[in-house]
Amino acid sequence: MQISRKADYAIRALIYVAAINGRRTCSINEIAENEKIPREYLAKILKELTQKGFLISYKGVNGGYRMAKSREGISFLDILEATQGPFVLSSCNQDYKDEPGCKGKDACASFDFWDELHRKLKGIMAEMNLGKINYDKYYQFADTKDKVTT
Amino acid sequence: MQISRKADYAIRALIYVAAINGRRTCSINEIAENEKIPREYLAKILKELTQKGFLISYKGVNGGYRMAKSREGISFLDILEATQGPFVLSSCNQDYKDEPGCKGKDACASFDFWDELHRKLKGIMAEMNLGKINYDKYYQFADTKDKVTT
Repeated sequence: MQISRKADYAIRALIYVAAINGRRTCSINEIAENEKIPREYLAKILKELTQKGFLISYKGVNGGYRMAKSREGISFLDILEATQGPFVLSSCNQDYKDEPGCKGKDACASFDFWDELHRKLKGIMAEMNLGKINYDKYYQFADTKDKVTT
Repeated sequence: MQISRKADYAIRALIYVAAINGRRTCSINEIAENEKIPREYLAKILKELTQKGFLISYKGVNGGYRMAKSREGISFLDILEATQGPFVLSSCNQDYKDEPGCKGKDACASFDFWDELHRKLKGIMAEMNLGKINYDKYYQFADTKDKVTT
């Protein structure tokens, strides 16, 4: 049940931009360098996150990215679903009519179990947002407070 | 984040045996037929679940499987970890020293976030056990109460 590499990179990139928190734009290069994310792949992810309303993209000399929402407005579930699609635990959480052996939810002993488990896990993931991170830690080992490298 | 097919089959097989709840043994054939699980694959899964203490296997004419523990004694987390290995959400939940870009937990803003998320999700999965299923539903559409087919 490990999250995808794409979701992992998206989360790390967003945490980085959230740490800067609007003081200035963040360039692709600095995010790629500080988070050790391959630049080309990161560019695609940042473009998608911009299209989906997580980031605002600025062009030009001081171009880069800023948060489009507050930290509290972005949950782990938001990022996961933006990068991996709807959160699904088992075939019970999808259109079950296609699943061999599926008895349909009225006849299935485990439907309620899956449904409750899915709801609870999704709830936890929706509660965990970027506002719950201690960003002070982010600067402890940086040379400069804003970690500007390029 | 969908669970593996193996974990899915293991859960369905265990729910089936838990529904019978010790009144008699359950044969591989009836589990395979009622849950639409490929027999050969199911045989391997049941053998593993027996080795790992979830089931007891009986040989002979009335051979088959029974629960080795109470329903409450088997959680979703138990079954998941028995079939998929330790629950891991991101590389932060593993030996982080190997992960490119990893700053180590003392310097990382997101370590605490991942740690808390992982703990909460794991907690939910440990709470959800086979005792929380309504087994009455299991027999609603069966021809016979014990669903014996072979």
